[in-house]
Amino acid sequence: MGIAFVKGHGTENDFVLLPDPDGRLSLTPELVARICDRRAGIGGDGVLRVTPDTSGAAEWFMDYRNADGSVAEMCGNGVRVFARYLVSAGLTEPGDLVIATRGGVKQVRAGLEGDVTVDMGIALFPDTDDIKVKVGDRSWSAVAVDMGNPHAVVLVDDLADAGPLHEAPSVDPAFPHGVNVEFVSRLGDGHLAMRVHERGVGETRSCGTGACAAMLVAARRARAAPPTSYVVDVPGGRLTVTHREDDHVELAGPAVLVAAGELSDSITG
Amino acid sequence: MGIAFVKGHGTENDFVLLPDPDGRLSLTPELVARICDRRAGIGGDGVLRVTPDTSGAAEWFMDYRNADGSVAEMCGNGVRVFARYLVSAGLTEPGDLVIATRGGVKQVRAGLEGDVTVDMGIALFPDTDDIKVKVGDRSWSAVAVDMGNPHAVVLVDDLADAGPLHEAPSVDPAFPHGVNVEFVSRLGDGHLAMRVHERGVGETRSCGTGACAAMLVAARRARAAPPTSYVVDVPGGRLTVTHREDDHVELAGPAVLVAAGELSDSITG
Repeated sequence: MGIAFVKGHGTENDFVLLPDPDGRLSLTPELVARICDRRAGIGGDGVLRVTPDTSGAAEWFMDYRNADGSVAEMCGNGVRVFARYLVSAGLTEPGDLVIATRGGVKQVRAGLEGDVTVDMGIALFPDTDDIKVKVGDRSWSAVAVDMGNPHAVVLVDDLADAGPLHEAPSVDPAFPHGVNVEFVSRLGDGHLAMRVHERGVGETRSCGTGACAAMLVAARRARAAPPTSYVVDVPGGRLTVTHREDDHVELAGPAVLVAAGELSDSITG
Repeated sequence: MGIAFVKGHGTENDFVLLPDPDGRLSLTPELVARICDRRAGIGGDGVLRVTPDTSGAAEWFMDYRNADGSVAEMCGNGVRVFARYLVSAGLTEPGDLVIATRGGVKQVRAGLEGDVTVDMGIALFPDTDDIKVKVGDRSWSAVAVDMGNPHAVVLVDDLADAGPLHEAPSVDPAFPHGVNVEFVSRLGDGHLAMRVHERGVGETRSCGTGACAAMLVAARRARAAPPTSYVVDVPGGRLTVTHREDDHVELAGPAVLVAAGELSDSITG
């Protein structure tokens, strides 16, 4: 047996963590794809290599790769699972911690158990024209939100209105690098439900930046003094999004470690 | 950490093996479903509990459960992965071995590496009327084969003819307990390609009994003296099916162990 791994998920956004305390693991796109294969591998939305940060900004660096092996900058649910692992493995003290990512240094709060919270930074509202989202013969107006990645948020009365979402909704005008589309309905005061179609992936169980975008748009559309904190129910669980006074957006939710073990030679080659 | 597990697959039909040498594990349907959940668990088409056979017929009993937690009798790819584990873990000598299942005692041949072969028994050809299989506006004649489970085999020129197979093909007359539908094309002498829609599941990467049924129908339709052994390419890999002189059907193919470790309390509760 070879490489050690831990599997974990945040609201069913799942990852294979590869502890690499000596920075020795060389991750090829092929190896990442083999690990993330849901049938011939462990399966996951991505790999999180856990390795010391060499920039000096943090103790640990999250080397995040998409399931297809490509390099990715950041992932809200991924960094929460990463923090849960650091605390659980005793690699850092519980409480406030910083984690280096390709998308910058992230502030995270993780106790010994319970939700893990990450500061997702400040959202931008691009000054776009009216955005129209279409699924089949239905269409809606959407609001663009930039959380480091692009979102188009549609407020609907009933999440079922968006249909099966097998295919990407058509968005007009088109976004140059594609867009994640969130359908959001209000369940009560400070309580939303959301479905998301992630660009290049399809409908997913959860999307951390999408939940943040959904919350911000819902709060703008709410009465004069909306709650600063919303519960956002996604298919894979429940997130909490808080719009802080300093304009930063915080994402909180469960981060669970499912199993730990070693990959066999059939994967590591 | 708690329950030990091994993940393995045979032509991408994947399983979570639970070594239980003392017969102590109590598998509830809920626990099986949590383990087989591809995002919040390890993920697999089913669980194979590895436990001593108490009937005296074999050393080991394959306690097979479907991913939804229901009890299942047998699985051709499952028993091959089960045998690979027994040999790999040193729980049995490599070579010819017997494994007890709810579908009877199975004869298996597993070396220290390479393909694993299982005797799938004798097929029955139910004396059914003409069977018609329809996908969209296309329809074909099919041949019924009973491998312990029911199959309807359609010979086509091109596997793409069956279309996306998102939904179950309609079969007329209907089978009382549903039917697996195989689309089979001839690639050469003793060489087939197959796609399968498994009842209650959808299109899958592989189906051991389906490959056997496909081979038998192709051989019947071939020239006077067809090969007794066919290579059957499935989306998840390559199987070999042999029709022996004693009328038994043998299924051979890769069986791979992917990883080993322990499940955390988040799954085992």
